[in-house]
Amino acid sequence: MPGSGRRADARRNYTRILAVAEEEVAAQGAGASLEQIARTAGVGSATVRRHFPTRRALLEAVSRERIDALRLRALDLAGKADSRGALLEWLDDVVAYCVSARGLAAALSYDTAGADPVHGNTCAAALEEAADPLLHRAVRDGTVTPDVTVADLITLIVGITLATEHHPGPAAQAHRLFRLAVTGLGPAR
Amino acid sequence: MPGSGRRADARRNYTRILAVAEEEVAAQGAGASLEQIARTAGVGSATVRRHFPTRRALLEAVSRERIDALRLRALDLAGKADSRGALLEWLDDVVAYCVSARGLAAALSYDTAGADPVHGNTCAAALEEAADPLLHRAVRDGTVTPDVTVADLITLIVGITLATEHHPGPAAQAHRLFRLAVTGLGPAR
Repeated sequence: MPGSGRRADARRNYTRILAVAEEEVAAQGAGASLEQIARTAGVGSATVRRHFPTRRALLEAVSRERIDALRLRALDLAGKADSRGALLEWLDDVVAYCVSARGLAAALSYDTAGADPVHGNTCAAALEEAADPLLHRAVRDGTVTPDVTVADLITLIVGITLATEHHPGPAAQAHRLFRLAVTGLGPAR
Repeated sequence: MPGSGRRADARRNYTRILAVAEEEVAAQGAGASLEQIARTAGVGSATVRRHFPTRRALLEAVSRERIDALRLRALDLAGKADSRGALLEWLDDVVAYCVSARGLAAALSYDTAGADPVHGNTCAAALEEAADPLLHRAVRDGTVTPDVTVADLITLIVGITLATEHHPGPAAQAHRLFRLAVTGLGPAR
């Protein structure tokens, strides 16, 4: 069955290209070289272009994988007894995701701002939808202020990611600063 | 005295170019057009170049004015009875400064990261030196956690500024998110 063999090949190529693209985007940001991705995946540039006609298509696919993982994580955490802890655990995962894929953090920042009516807030909206139940449960339990939205929290995380980009230990510093924002500066008067 | 007349002219030009440059950088960011600055100031490009040989020299001069203003503000606030309020008032000024001069916020983010050993952390260091007494007084009074540094707070502000850049109301949103970070998400368990 040569036809199904070709389809299996294409599927394997797609999976391999996507895996390589994830690593390259994590390392180089949204501007990662498509030629380098093709070389590392052991395929021709034409094969990359067949699967991902534009850079945006590739970035969206990379992003989708991560967003899907964060959505599943939110579902998992919804069952956790400690509602504040569940929300914070999920947000820590978002920090880790943004730190490891800076190009996507920048894309997400544009996204959350709602300034792109054509592309829509797809990534941000998907994350908001996933995390809203976690946030609402924590607010209902009185462990998180009702004055905050998931979009606020994602904007904070994206900002912290961007501002710690040149730090010698960006991941640790981003997690530290996000914890600081969660805790606040200390007792109000 | 034609010599002193020329000096007075040069001083006036310098002041005018700097004032225009502040507005242009506030509006356009660090990439503001030097030709546009010359035109608006009513001088030739050669005059701009004589006072500010490089873009960096111009940006540093613009930045210096703002940093100096923030230093004076910190001194003023040091006498305020409410130590936490004094610190927060100063930080709100930093937010306003970063929002109105985004190119400089980006420069400051690179700066605070300490990744530029040649240029040094001049802006960040000047701000830290100015605000350290405000922070220490608040920590001593027990109104702010000892786990935070001025550099942390500036990094948070820079990040929030960058992440709200595309927001329809960036200033209000930046102030709101910074207040959120100051207050924290609410009661810990």
